[in-house]
This record gives sequence, C-alpha cells and structure tokens, in this order.
Amino acid sequence: MVHQTSPSYSILIRVEIENRIGMFARLATVISGAGGDLGSVDIVRVEKGKIIRDVTVNARDAAHEKEIVQAIRGIEGLKVLKVMDQTFSVHQGGKIEVHNKVPVRDRSDLSKVYTPGVARVCMDIHANTEHAWRYTIKGNSVAVVTDGTAVLGLGDIGPEAAMPVMEGKSMLFKEFAGIDAFPIALSTKDPEEIINTVKNIAPAFGGINLEDISAPRCFEIEMRLRKMLDIPVFHDDQHGTAVVVLAAIINVGRLMKKEIRNFRVVIAGAGAAGMANANMLSAYGIRDIIVCDREGAIYKGRKKDMNPYKTSLAKRTNPNKIKGTVSQALSGAHIFIGLSGPNVITGDDVRKMVKRPIVFALANPEPEIYPEDARPLVSVLATGRSDYPNQINNVLGFPGIFRGLLDVHARGVNEEVKLAAAGAIARTIKDDELHEDYIIPSIFDRTVAASVAHAVAEVARKTGLARH
Amino acid sequence: MVHQTSPSYSILIRVEIENRIGMFARLATVISGAGGDLGSVDIVRVEKGKIIRDVTVNARDAAHEKEIVQAIRGIEGLKVLKVMDQTFSVHQGGKIEVHNKVPVRDRSDLSKVYTPGVARVCMDIHANTEHAWRYTIKGNSVAVVTDGTAVLGLGDIGPEAAMPVMEGKSMLFKEFAGIDAFPIALSTKDPEEIINTVKNIAPAFGGINLEDISAPRCFEIEMRLRKMLDIPVFHDDQHGTAVVVLAAIINVGRLMKKEIRNFRVVIAGAGAAGMANANMLSAYGIRDIIVCDREGAIYKGRKKDMNPYKTSLAKRTNPNKIKGTVSQALSGAHIFIGLSGPNVITGDDVRKMVKRPIVFALANPEPEIYPEDARPLVSVLATGRSDYPNQINNVLGFPGIFRGLLDVHARGVNEEVKLAAAGAIARTIKDDELHEDYIIPSIFDRTVAASVAHAVAEVARKTGLARH
Repeated sequence: MVHQTSPSYSILIRVEIENRIGMFARLATVISGAGGDLGSVDIVRVEKGKIIRDVTVNARDAAHEKEIVQAIRGIEGLKVLKVMDQTFSVHQGGKIEVHNKVPVRDRSDLSKVYTPGVARVCMDIHANTEHAWRYTIKGNSVAVVTDGTAVLGLGDIGPEAAMPVMEGKSMLFKEFAGIDAFPIALSTKDPEEIINTVKNIAPAFGGINLEDISAPRCFEIEMRLRKMLDIPVFHDDQHGTAVVVLAAIINVGRLMKKEIRNFRVVIAGAGAAGMANANMLSAYGIRDIIVCDREGAIYKGRKKDMNPYKTSLAKRTNPNKIKGTVSQALSGAHIFIGLSGPNVITGDDVRKMVKRPIVFALANPEPEIYPEDARPLVSVLATGRSDYPNQINNVLGFPGIFRGLLDVHARGVNEEVKLAAAGAIARTIKDDELHEDYIIPSIFDRTVAASVAHAVAEVARKTGLARH
Repeated sequence: MVHQTSPSYSILIRVEIENRIGMFARLATVISGAGGDLGSVDIVRVEKGKIIRDVTVNARDAAHEKEIVQAIRGIEGLKVLKVMDQTFSVHQGGKIEVHNKVPVRDRSDLSKVYTPGVARVCMDIHANTEHAWRYTIKGNSVAVVTDGTAVLGLGDIGPEAAMPVMEGKSMLFKEFAGIDAFPIALSTKDPEEIINTVKNIAPAFGGINLEDISAPRCFEIEMRLRKMLDIPVFHDDQHGTAVVVLAAIINVGRLMKKEIRNFRVVIAGAGAAGMANANMLSAYGIRDIIVCDREGAIYKGRKKDMNPYKTSLAKRTNPNKIKGTVSQALSGAHIFIGLSGPNVITGDDVRKMVKRPIVFALANPEPEIYPEDARPLVSVLATGRSDYPNQINNVLGFPGIFRGLLDVHARGVNEEVKLAAAGAIARTIKDDELHEDYIIPSIFDRTVAASVAHAVAEVARKTGLARH
C-alpha cells in the first residue's frame, strides 16, 4: 500500500545554499529522490556567496518528513537552518479569535457599547426576551460542543486534545456560512452533566452543534437537549454525515440511472454516524440495509453487544437477517458505507460485492480501505479525506443547515430539514456534470451552503420551526 | 437635579431640508432650544431644491430624545425621514464575532487546519495536555460568565438581557488586552449548577471572568471554582472594582499628601463589590472602614439581615461599632465609596463628612449622588460613569490582570496579583500629573493594561502561579 504525499504533512525548510550554479537543482533532485513533493520556493535573502531559501515540501507522514530533512542535510554546500511543520505552525496560539464588530476608540463609543448606554438595551431584552435574537450574538452564534470521546477516528482523547478539531469546525462555520461558532470542550463524560451544561450555556447561542460525542451516549444527549431547548440541537456526526451521504447516494442513482431504493447497502460502524445513516437511508426508502459493528451484522434477535438503539435498528433493517462479519455481509451488496475505522475491509471483500460496486470509505484520517486499493475494483469511490475525489465531508451540510436555521431563528430541527438539505446538496451538480469522480460537489463550491440554507429555511418555515 | 446630555442617548436623525439660506441654522437653533447637543452633521445627498442631511444629537434620556425629534418635526420646510437610536444601532446582530486566524481557501489549507492534518495536533495534545496552551485558543481565551442576577445596577434581569453587557465586556478584553473573551450567559441561578457548568467548560479557556453574579452566592461560587480549576477564576465585580478603587485611593493619598491608612472610609453596599473593597482596603492597611447595607452599618453583633460573609466582615471592620444609616455613618468620614444604587446619599449627607471629603459614587448607570450635586462639596469626586472625570472603571484592571496571567499560563490568581495591579494602575499617573480630576488614568490610556500585565506577570512568577 503506497501512501500519497499530503499537504497535512507539509514542512517548511529554511536552507542556506552556496550561491553557485546547479545547487538548487541538486536540492530539488534530492527532495524528489527522497519521495518528497516540492511546493513553493521563496528567497528569504541573499548574502555574500550564499542564498537563504524557504522550500515547502509535502511528505507522506511524520517519519517521511524526517527522512527528507535527513537527505537534504547530506547535501554538500547546504545548511538546514530551520524546519517547521506547517500543520503545527497554523495551530500556534489557536486558529480562531474574537473580533469587535464596532470600534471602542473613545468615551462616546464606550457609552454606547458598554456603560451606561448598554443598560437600555439590556432592559429592552429584559422586557422581551425574543429581542436577544436582534441585539445579541444569539442570532448568528453556534456552540460547537464536545466531550472529546469520539474525535475523528482517534477515539476518547479528552477535551483539550479535541480542541483543534472544534476550532477547525468553528473555522468552517465562519468560512462557509459566516456563522460565529465557538468551541466548548467539556471536562465531563457524564450524559447528565453534559445535558445540564449545554442547557445552562444555551441562552447566548442560536444553535448547538454537538460534535464527536461517542455512541450510544450521544443519542440520549441529543434527544433530551432537543426536548429542553428552543433552539436547534444537531449532532453533526450523526445527521451531518447522514445528509451528505444521502446526497451522494442520490447522485449515484442519477449517474447510474438506477433506482437506489432497490440496492443492498452495508454500513460498517454502529456509532453515531452509522446509526444516523441507516436511519436516514431507511427514511429515504432503501429497504435492504445491513449495519455491522465489531460483532458483525446487527440482526433482529442478536444477543451479543446490543443496546436499545441497536435493538430498535435491528427491527427496521436487515430484512434477510444476514449474520456474520462485514466481509460476509458484503456478499452481493451494491453499496458499502464505512463509518468505522482504518482497514476494516480488503480488496477481496470488495470483490464479493456486485461487479463494480460503490464504496464509501469514510473513516478519518485512515479510511476503511485505502483508495489506491479500492479504486481499480469499484465504479464510484468516496472517502472522508480532503486529498481524494468525492470527499464526503460534513462541511457540505452543517454550515448551510445552521445558516438556514439561524436565518429563521428556528426553534429546533426536524427530519424534513435534513432531507431538504440532502436534496439541495445533490442538486448543485447538474445531470451533465455528474461523473464517477464528481457525485458530490467540492466543499469549496461556495454555492452549496447558500443553496442548502435556502432549502432549509424554506422547509423550516413550512414545518413551523421558524420564529419569523 | 439637571442631567447632562450623554452619547449613550445619541440619535441619528435623517432630515430632508428645503435648500435655502438659513434652514440649517434654524434646525441647529431648534435642537439647542430643545436642550439637545448637536454632534456630527453629514450631507447624504442633494436633490432638486432639497438637501438630505444626517444629524447626530445627544439627549439626556429617552424621553428627551422624543422631545427633540418632536421639536424638529415642527420646523416648516423640513421633513424627518428616519430616526435611529445609535446605542441600539451598534447592538444590531451583537457586538462581537469569531474570526479565523488563517484562511481556508483550498484543500491544502483544509488538510492543515482540519482533517486529516489536525489529527496529529490532537494526538500531540493528548500525549501532553499542557500543549493545549500552545496549539489551541486556551492561551489567549477567557470565558465571561454570568447568570444575569446582578447586572450593572439593574439587578436580576436574566441571562439573555445580560448578554449586551457580557459582549461589551468581551469587547473591552479585546480592545485593551488583545484577549479573546467569549460571553457565557447561564440559564441557572443555582450555585451548584453554576460551579459545575463552569468547571465543565473550562478546558477551552485560560481564565474565567465571573461577572454580575449576585452576592452572597458569588463568594462561594468563586471560592469553590478557584479550588477546582487550574486556571485563574476572577469575579471582576469583586476584585476588579477593588483593584481600581484602591489605585484611586492610593493616588488620593499622593495628591493630598496624607496617610490614607488613617482615614475613615464608609462603603455603601455589601454586595460583591462592597465586600471585596472592604477586604482589599483592609488588606492595604486602612483600619476604620464601615460597610453599610440596606439595614445600615454592619457591626459586630448585628442580628438583622446578616450572612456568614457579613459576620466575618463585621469582625474585621467598623472598630468603633458605629450603628445606624449610611447617612449617620458618614458623620466625620473622609471617604465615601458608593457601590450600591442610585440616590443613596444626598448633599446634606456629604456635608456631614469632613470638610471637602472624597466621594466615589460608583453605582452604574445611576450614581449614589449625582455628580452635579456632589461636586461643589468635595475635594475629589469619582464615579463609575464614562461621561464624568475620574471614572472608576474596571476596564483599568481586568484586561491587564488577565493579560499578565495568560502570559505566564497562570494556575490561578492571588492577593499579591491584585495589589500589584492596583499599584501599577496608580503609578501610571506621575506626581506632577496628579489632579483632583485626574486621580485615575483614562481608560483610553493604552499604557495602563501593559503596565498592569507586566506587574501581574512578575508577581505571578514570584508567587508560584506561573506555569513558565
């Protein structure tokens, strides 16, 4: 299995080179000889007989970064001055900050934004709490809440270690939907404490995005918070993923001109995303869905490693009561959706599916099967990674979904909103644009969030979620 | 009692005026005749025979705003097109927002700030939790936490109505110390819930600023959180006010060339600020302090309306066991510090104090005695308002205090930090600059926060609070 170089393993190397012909070519040759991917090259300064350059190199992984630097150090007439890992560099000091929307330059400003003028605005909201939507950040703010128990594919790494993901998520809210999201990483894993804490901090926010909270606790936490609060509560690992996967599958149907409701779908993973995907595909009308966890296929009557959510799921899915491992369940399946962990299936497993099947290997950062291995066997391949085509990324969903909900000051979120969002994402690709490597729009297609927001706001109004 | 016009009652009036000589002078005359204070005047556009202008007028209060507009409407040849209250205008949509520190323009950016690269940073913090200070917002972030029970002088107005103050506070953190503060308004008043909630959300933050939580609950909440958390917890209404008042009183001593430790100080208000001020002045060495609440002077042995904090205070203050009302307690006092509510004392009360006494009437937005009434009777007058000289404003304290604590990744806060902050604030005014209207620096003196931060960081290092 050959990994590609990736911008997530990007190093900036500052080198001092003797200023003579052929030296830079030598450096470039050494980098490519070591398997590094040379990116930007800048001249920092020129000194007597020497030139200082910054070169950016993408590597395959951390060990490969070291190999490349080692190889460069071996060049005669060249000195490595500094090596910076670009991923760690952008995290220095955190990735988001708070800005003031109006300046506070003088006493006149201050008496408006703070005392004594602010008291009038406070009393106005005190008289009519709904005015908080107008005169506070509530109308555009979302809390990104985690307990750090199910972060990416990394598992329970704790609230501090989860923060880079939560800050990244907040960045995406801003970048794609202009939403002011703030990360809240909780130092408790107790569902009651989490529920209470989120309830308690809710007044400042217009929405709650639950993130990376492990199953099955996440189901109860979300359900109870939805009942308690009069703002949308949305566990993105469940519904965000389900929305985007459904959008992609709708487009697979359009591309293949086949009725996907007749397909057999095997889902690996009965965590937050696996459960929500099964529920949503089921709601869409797909009948033959088999969800597998570590024990294998979940079927009605299974005893081992069940919980109330799996029991409920078993009643609604796997109509043929298929038993056994993921590998066994895949026999004759049309679609594999991996929402589990690295290397759960092999090329041989894919060969058991129908000919040229559809494989969504969505585990992050390491997929269920490496794209290089799967690609020759499938008709459509999707991953959760940003460095391959067909990226099933929640960022296609949550910014537009929350934008639409905030725009109408929604009291909550419902199934219709999610289906509308999936449809809107799918429709951003036109019939003549559909392609096996383009079943889902690029996350950098700036029209997606706006289309989703529009569809969501419309449905929220129709279904009574909207405050106005 | 005559109120002054204030920029916190500022209206922008758009008028269409017939374009002939004398019309604008007529408008200006009507505004000043109605007692309005004419500010900026802009031409919006000129149409055939008409000129559209925006005029800004400061009024005394909301009723006065209406009177002025009414008077303007009476001018022949003039049409009022629009009236906007500037204070409400700046609150539209909230006053702060979240910004991304690095752009997310393409897949290369995304694989660094989010998946898959972010996983490496997460795992680095997972291996060493202290790295959260380096790679997340923790090193520069403060939670501004309230339950909305004691907001300004407005009382228990609830979390939504408290938000404009919390957002304003967050703005000041940014403006004066570059700190990323985020408002957390709690929908609970239960001390146990507040303590749990703050403990639970702490991992993302480098400090907790408790704000506008009513006494005596605030004392226990702060004390217990300080024990639980390894970051500074600072109830600004207590200590921020106490720090700035002490700084001002130190400078009164310098100005008058008198030993303030021998002064009698009467404090009106036994809430968060009153208690903390008594404690801090006492720690500084002032012995004759009388704290009064609604029941009058607090003395050892008083039975009515006591709590454990007042009982403890009674042991350490009021050595002559003065009883009776604030007015009675003021007899022969050198300094009055009002930390209570509007119109608690009168000119006659001030006349009972020593000749030309010192009056700090700090209630916000309405002082204990109006400056116009007190000024002729006193040697030094200070208020909590931004529209009079000698503003005792916490903004002189908290930005620099938190800046200093964050700079050393402090594990907490102690008495030495507060005394150092008070000293640093006082010293920003040089001997030859001191004046009865300049005992405390302007809050727009940008050197204050830096001086305070420096003094705080130094003391934090000396007293073992600093992580590095």
